[in-house]
Amino acid sequence: MSEIVKKVASGDIRAVAKLIRDIDDKVPEVREVLKDLYPFTGKAYVVGITGAPGVGKSTLVDQMVTHLRGNGQTVGILAVDPTSPFSGGAILGDRVRMQRHSLDEGVFIRSMATRGYFGGLTQSTRSAIDVLDAMGKDYILVETVGVGQDEIDIVQSAHTTIIVLVPGMGDDIQALKAGILEVGDIFVVNKADREGADRTVNDLRLMIEMDEKRYKDGWKPPILTAQAVFDKGIQEILEEIENHKAFLASSVERQSALQHEKARHDLTEMIKDQIIQEVLADIVNSGEFEQALQSIAERKLDPYTACDTIVSKKIKSGTR
Amino acid sequence: MSEIVKKVASGDIRAVAKLIRDIDDKVPEVREVLKDLYPFTGKAYVVGITGAPGVGKSTLVDQMVTHLRGNGQTVGILAVDPTSPFSGGAILGDRVRMQRHSLDEGVFIRSMATRGYFGGLTQSTRSAIDVLDAMGKDYILVETVGVGQDEIDIVQSAHTTIIVLVPGMGDDIQALKAGILEVGDIFVVNKADREGADRTVNDLRLMIEMDEKRYKDGWKPPILTAQAVFDKGIQEILEEIENHKAFLASSVERQSALQHEKARHDLTEMIKDQIIQEVLADIVNSGEFEQALQSIAERKLDPYTACDTIVSKKIKSGTR
Repeated sequence: MSEIVKKVASGDIRAVAKLIRDIDDKVPEVREVLKDLYPFTGKAYVVGITGAPGVGKSTLVDQMVTHLRGNGQTVGILAVDPTSPFSGGAILGDRVRMQRHSLDEGVFIRSMATRGYFGGLTQSTRSAIDVLDAMGKDYILVETVGVGQDEIDIVQSAHTTIIVLVPGMGDDIQALKAGILEVGDIFVVNKADREGADRTVNDLRLMIEMDEKRYKDGWKPPILTAQAVFDKGIQEILEEIENHKAFLASSVERQSALQHEKARHDLTEMIKDQIIQEVLADIVNSGEFEQALQSIAERKLDPYTACDTIVSKKIKSGTR
Repeated sequence: MSEIVKKVASGDIRAVAKLIRDIDDKVPEVREVLKDLYPFTGKAYVVGITGAPGVGKSTLVDQMVTHLRGNGQTVGILAVDPTSPFSGGAILGDRVRMQRHSLDEGVFIRSMATRGYFGGLTQSTRSAIDVLDAMGKDYILVETVGVGQDEIDIVQSAHTTIIVLVPGMGDDIQALKAGILEVGDIFVVNKADREGADRTVNDLRLMIEMDEKRYKDGWKPPILTAQAVFDKGIQEILEEIENHKAFLASSVERQSALQHEKARHDLTEMIKDQIIQEVLADIVNSGEFEQALQSIAERKLDPYTACDTIVSKKIKSGTR
């Protein structure tokens, strides 16, 4: 076992910080460390928190951390921001948060912001969760901004997923529709002092009740109201997390099916990522790619044909 | 040239509808049709419209269509919803919109909702844009819900990208940060009668002015206010689209650089998609994958090692 694995597993903050930075930077050597670290994972409880910009997720997470710490739990926080191409914004966010919990050794906060053609944010986040898990945090809160596929992929790594909304979305609650409703274990209508909170709660209830699949496994997602800035409703959220945790643990079959489903999701994402990293990088750095580009720009070649030619050459013998 | 290509290129609505449905369903034969159709593309002007749920994008698009039609322009609309796993929601959206423009032959509306492990929404949308372009629409409006990487990838296919916000996002305008600001050519603060509209406009202005890269090419994104439900501010948006269009056309070098950049983006996305489709499908349907899953669920194997083994076997001889 390498020195870094030992350090991370014993909760060394510097080692953890460096490892997560290396994950975000996609340093290749990280992979071996993650393999060795894996036996130390599997103890933390992972909570995903997602919702559109402006719903107050950060404040909510902040309050949840205070409550969890009050109960003596250690907490790791990952703020995931797929829309930030340079880490400027994410770092600013870190600093603002750090002020409150910065002197607390029981709290570890990091932002993830990888993006670009090669994607990999889902994978980096999963790996960072493993690291915080191995370092011994009791709870890991993963906060994502947005409601796209990235966010859904990320929160599917969580044990409990919280969807945060605000009143006054009107008919646009439709926009949240099935994809995000489907992954929500707990719904929180934040800023509940705003006009229309009751309507948002009712709309949500209707949509959840229409979605019969939800009841198959016996968990009906609660809909809570909160005012995170005034610390209202936070305790109730934590109680529902405990309820959901107990629910998941209450059946061996359910737990095993969940483990299996999670493994399938994680491995598929990981493989997808790996394929893109290895094959796509080779391709876009090739002369053939540049040549094809030129021809497409001059409209001498269509991109569909260019793509087929390049890809079939690349993966000819390895697959099929 | 096949019958379907002829039909689409002559604007046959049934043929177009079927082709787009086949694209969304990923029918393999579609690819050859798209190749043959490509020479008919390149004439339409593509406008991307994105923003968080609840900002009123659909209403805005609806009003823009009315104005464009008033000017005698034909319009194609693609509503892209990456969060909807089944097309239920998207179809509902279509119906609601259809009511208004359903009898107008100059308007063609479709929703795209592909999702899942194999992704491909960006690619399907690009192909659907090609189809609407080939069928002869003057303007194609691509509306996406959300602010994730998918949305950024999609709007990068547009000539002009409009970012829609609402007042009252407060500090959370930060959440929009660089990624989405970077791709915006025009910003619209909708629901501008709400409290805080001035502040949102000012916040935006500050953020755009801090981002010096924006000025390099000489286009300073205008920030407009609108009240789409009352048809206020729509004409101004269309004027700024025309301004941006004229700006893009005003320099041959700029236009050629843009063509090239767009070709690079499109081809990279297309190749990425193709690789995932071909390789990942093979892998997740293999016995080896299922075996690895079982071992991971039992914690006998770590997912990193499983991934490395499977991927290196798959792309061994084709690459590197």
